[in-house]
Amino acid sequence: MNVERFGWERLVAADIGEQIYALAVKIYPICRSITGEGVRHTLHELGKHIALQIKEVPTGTAVFDWTIPREWNIRDAYIKNERGEKVVDFAKSNLHVMSYSVPVRRRIPLSELKDHLHTLPRQPDLIPYRTSYYKEDWAFCITHRQLEALQDETYDVLIDSSLTEGYLTYGEYLHRGETEDEFLLSAHVCHPSLANDNCSGVALLTCLAARMAGLRTRYSYRFLFAPGTIGAITWLARNEDKCRRIKHGLVVSMVGDPGGPTYKRSRRGNAKIDRSIVHVLRHSGLKPTVLEFFPYGYDERQYCSPGFDLPVGLFQRSKFAEIPEYHTSADNLDFIRPEHLGESCRLIAQALDVIENDALCVNLMPKCEPQLGRRGLYGAVGGDKDAAAANMAMLWILNLSDGGHSLLDIAERAELPFDVIRSTAERLEQHGLLSASLVR
Amino acid sequence: MNVERFGWERLVAADIGEQIYALAVKIYPICRSITGEGVRHTLHELGKHIALQIKEVPTGTAVFDWTIPREWNIRDAYIKNERGEKVVDFAKSNLHVMSYSVPVRRRIPLSELKDHLHTLPRQPDLIPYRTSYYKEDWAFCITHRQLEALQDETYDVLIDSSLTEGYLTYGEYLHRGETEDEFLLSAHVCHPSLANDNCSGVALLTCLAARMAGLRTRYSYRFLFAPGTIGAITWLARNEDKCRRIKHGLVVSMVGDPGGPTYKRSRRGNAKIDRSIVHVLRHSGLKPTVLEFFPYGYDERQYCSPGFDLPVGLFQRSKFAEIPEYHTSADNLDFIRPEHLGESCRLIAQALDVIENDALCVNLMPKCEPQLGRRGLYGAVGGDKDAAAANMAMLWILNLSDGGHSLLDIAERAELPFDVIRSTAERLEQHGLLSASLVR
Amino acid sequence: MNVERFGWERLVAADIGEQIYALAVKIYPICRSITGEGVRHTLHELGKHIALQIKEVPTGTAVFDWTIPREWNIRDAYIKNERGEKVVDFAKSNLHVMSYSVPVRRRIPLSELKDHLHTLPRQPDLIPYRTSYYKEDWAFCITHRQLEALQDETYDVLIDSSLTEGYLTYGEYLHRGETEDEFLLSAHVCHPSLANDNCSGVALLTCLAARMAGLRTRYSYRFLFAPGTIGAITWLARNEDKCRRIKHGLVVSMVGDPGGPTYKRSRRGNAKIDRSIVHVLRHSGLKPTVLEFFPYGYDERQYCSPGFDLPVGLFQRSKFAEIPEYHTSADNLDFIRPEHLGESCRLIAQALDVIENDALCVNLMPKCEPQLGRRGLYGAVGGDKDAAAANMAMLWILNLSDGGHSLLDIAERAELPFDVIRSTAERLEQHGLLSASLVR
Repeated sequence: MNVERFGWERLVAADIGEQIYALAVKIYPICRSITGEGVRHTLHELGKHIALQIKEVPTGTAVFDWTIPREWNIRDAYIKNERGEKVVDFAKSNLHVMSYSVPVRRRIPLSELKDHLHTLPRQPDLIPYRTSYYKEDWAFCITHRQLEALQDETYDVLIDSSLTEGYLTYGEYLHRGETEDEFLLSAHVCHPSLANDNCSGVALLTCLAARMAGLRTRYSYRFLFAPGTIGAITWLARNEDKCRRIKHGLVVSMVGDPGGPTYKRSRRGNAKIDRSIVHVLRHSGLKPTVLEFFPYGYDERQYCSPGFDLPVGLFQRSKFAEIPEYHTSADNLDFIRPEHLGESCRLIAQALDVIENDALCVNLMPKCEPQLGRRGLYGAVGGDKDAAAANMAMLWILNLSDGGHSLLDIAERAELPFDVIRSTAERLEQHGLLSASLVR
Repeated sequence: MNVERFGWERLVAADIGEQIYALAVKIYPICRSITGEGVRHTLHELGKHIALQIKEVPTGTAVFDWTIPREWNIRDAYIKNERGEKVVDFAKSNLHVMSYSVPVRRRIPLSELKDHLHTLPRQPDLIPYRTSYYKEDWAFCITHRQLEALQDETYDVLIDSSLTEGYLTYGEYLHRGETEDEFLLSAHVCHPSLANDNCSGVALLTCLAARMAGLRTRYSYRFLFAPGTIGAITWLARNEDKCRRIKHGLVVSMVGDPGGPTYKRSRRGNAKIDRSIVHVLRHSGLKPTVLEFFPYGYDERQYCSPGFDLPVGLFQRSKFAEIPEYHTSADNLDFIRPEHLGESCRLIAQALDVIENDALCVNLMPKCEPQLGRRGLYGAVGGDKDAAAANMAMLWILNLSDGGHSLLDIAERAELPFDVIRSTAERLEQHGLLSASLVR
Repeated sequence: MNVERFGWERLVAADIGEQIYALAVKIYPICRSITGEGVRHTLHELGKHIALQIKEVPTGTAVFDWTIPREWNIRDAYIKNERGEKVVDFAKSNLHVMSYSVPVRRRIPLSELKDHLHTLPRQPDLIPYRTSYYKEDWAFCITHRQLEALQDETYDVLIDSSLTEGYLTYGEYLHRGETEDEFLLSAHVCHPSLANDNCSGVALLTCLAARMAGLRTRYSYRFLFAPGTIGAITWLARNEDKCRRIKHGLVVSMVGDPGGPTYKRSRRGNAKIDRSIVHVLRHSGLKPTVLEFFPYGYDERQYCSPGFDLPVGLFQRSKFAEIPEYHTSADNLDFIRPEHLGESCRLIAQALDVIENDALCVNLMPKCEPQLGRRGLYGAVGGDKDAAAANMAMLWILNLSDGGHSLLDIAERAELPFDVIRSTAERLEQHGLLSASLVR
């Protein structure tokens, strides 16, 4: 076992939460959709931190059962009353326009306008987030209070958008490790000003990738920033032959709120990524929720489709759609906090650490216990809780190191943190009692 | 997948409960035992509904470890007091005479008579049901109140019965399906006037068989109406070579009371019949009890003996022997209700439907999700609960259709009713997204 | 199945608890350690009951990673105040001197003496038990009240002990059975006057071995009385090639207190010994605690080290270290009671019975149930609870006797005591319905 390998601490600075938050603040105002300048602008910001490769895929390209749609861009939008006052203004919130709304410039009565207004009657102060990618339509999304305040008059409606031949844009960054085996880390980059969903995930992965840059790793890490669904499908269609390299993967979204953490297992159910994250969460001191795989959610839907069945799970804080802020204007920069972003990043880094450092162990003195005392390996037992855990860790490692158990296996069985098991195994190795070799 | 196949709805008319109840009313008064005219009379009634084959097996025939006993018949029985009054009269209830009582015509004092009286002291108004098939004896079964009213005098006792060389009688009906693989449905037909145990089961299977007559089925369905224990043993002994055709089976008894439903698994524990019924019960909105196999109960004891080990479970409402009406005169026509009979029949029909229609599925577009929206396959998500279930059903089917999962597997995993999974799979098949082939 | 074989009742006399207690009383006063005259004296007492072989292994002998230490003996020890009064006297309790204390004869002030005093501040009336086998040191163990009463004066301190080239001593006794397959029963014999830990276990195994002397058994039983850790390691190092004969094993310690019973599974987790003891405990009417294996505790640590991985569990009453009396002077002869010792012995004997008598069963009439009634095998069903259990036992045995289930398998599945299953199987065998052959 190579003790020079990175530990998770090297992946996360003390102020990692602040760094992630700062980047999220930067990209929050951008109006993103599944195509268009918003995505390009966002990826440009990420590119200031990591050597991001930008890929452009033309409208009309077939990707499995799908086709790259026209590119959507928007410059301005408003609703003006008869007095020329903008009662709804895209400049105030890019949620005000349904994503992929076709261009409109009309004067219409309230009755007709109402067919194109979305509100949340039960959350009357919030703007909903709505899209219509594959059905031509237009709409405004406003608060229910705005709707109630609308007079029965005639309105000037403008949506200065365009739907044209163009491109779908995504970015990827590969951190090369010692092997070509890959760890996929994926965040959707298609939502407009929603802070948790998914400025948080995009910013977290960017900062994690940036921290990784100087480190030697066993796996190669592929960071993918792509529009949800169509972006993941596009990447899979263009990289089908590379997929067999993917040994572990994680979709990261909504990682800045105070809820959860929540982990949804990969389709395989107990892949290494599943076991590693679940192990880390169980020793986190938090109250994690671990969900079995189900075929709804984020881009794990695509990675875990039966034709790929990649070992990719989903990491979140609150479970999506179960919080009132979900897909509303309340998912803003106040909803995400540096401490939650930092904690999320630490948890993910710890899971990476488990996967990087898991090793098969062989006890070199397997007959009876070796005499730990004369080697000074027994800690003070009375009172010192850490020493007691270290003693139990030694005994567990020695007992289970029959060549059939890895450090993670032992950590799971001993119900001790991987960190403790790993550092204890290193001590035993230094004393010639153990031989450990990395698990592939 | 052949969409012309029967669904369970075609097996049960709206008034199926009333039909079953009417037939139960018809056969309730008949005095049945394990042999004799009562069984013949009952099978004759069933024969008015289905083309029942009647089999007669002579007294003395060896059937495995057993021998067909003498045939028992009874014409009259009473206990008269010194004033010539019938204080107990077989004409009022055929439970009054212990089944297989030998002929008696004697004048005896109360003290001697008492050795031949069965009562239920804790249920003083009910007549118990008693038998003595294999030990020559005679007895009357009376209410405890009747016993307490008996004066210390001399009684004329008559049991005008006969035990003679004759036959054991059973009936069977085979609905021929597309294959010779059989589904065995079995009800015991040896109890006298006990409505739930088992006029209910006999009537239910007869009505189910009658409804099935016009339908094309994959399996052949064998309906067996035979005396408990000795009847099932006789059938097995005479049809040993046919048994390997039996792929699924169900013993049906006590299906008209308001309790349960109760399902006792086959000896195999998780056979297709077990999984199918348990699935149906779990989605029934009722509070089913599912029991592991145990070697006591009804004729599943014989079907599940280790020399046969057939996949045959037991379907009931209340668990036998756990209700106060069990084996007493309170198990009468008021105790069973058309609504419970109908519900029992529907549950059984639904389980048959699962077995008939289960199919292995292959997703024809297994790489990423197909674009369901452009095919009009996505239901309105918001609010419409059925549409949401249909959407999840689609996603589950597409995700699990890797050739290793059947519709039932998917229904179990998705925790959605088989009906929903099946109809959704048909839609996907119609859109060329799925190929399904029946499970054998 | 050989009905002459011993049942567990023949292993335990009615007064077995009194016998065990009497022997525990005898050996309680002896000052034992991991070497020395105390162990020899103790083994000499055991040798009055069984033909114990005493083994002596010289100081300096290598046993795997360990070395036999010097032999420790002690004659006297005290602390005298300035008035010549013995304020601490080894003659009153051999716990007063830390085991393996080096010789001392000094006059020292209280301040210096205090560095060599162990007390239990939270249990101020109890003397703690302490050892320092592998680090040269000396100390007295006294009650906290004694400590508080010490004046600030000068004390005469004497420990008249010796640490010299000598031997490690252990005893073993082999009861020869019909085969060379062995059942290992092991108790540590290194603690001084601690009644439960482990005079109780030593006395129990000795009495069990004595009772076994006249009996024919299938397994050979090896009883091992050795110092904890170093003794077990020594035995394993000297008998490495014999270990493959050990098919089952049990470490017995702390078996006289009213708590538990507690069973800790072997490393294999579900070995025959584990299943047998757990079965017996579950039918004991007590509230047993069953623990998964963990690599801390008694000599099962050595037997279950990965180089041996023997199927050896640990039987106790209270779980060690979880009772206030543990390793204190409160673990005295009042703490253990004949009734608990007897009960512990009966439970162990019952588990031995299961292992001795487990047999694979084949139903000789596997097609349908045999007619039990005409063979007089059906007990009176109504009311008689034992008869009902016997009936169910018959049905379970017949149903599961397909050659793939043993009596223990059947007892577990039927949730009936092994005794009932075994005696019922014998009845069925006598009636030609069953063939049973001992499980190896």
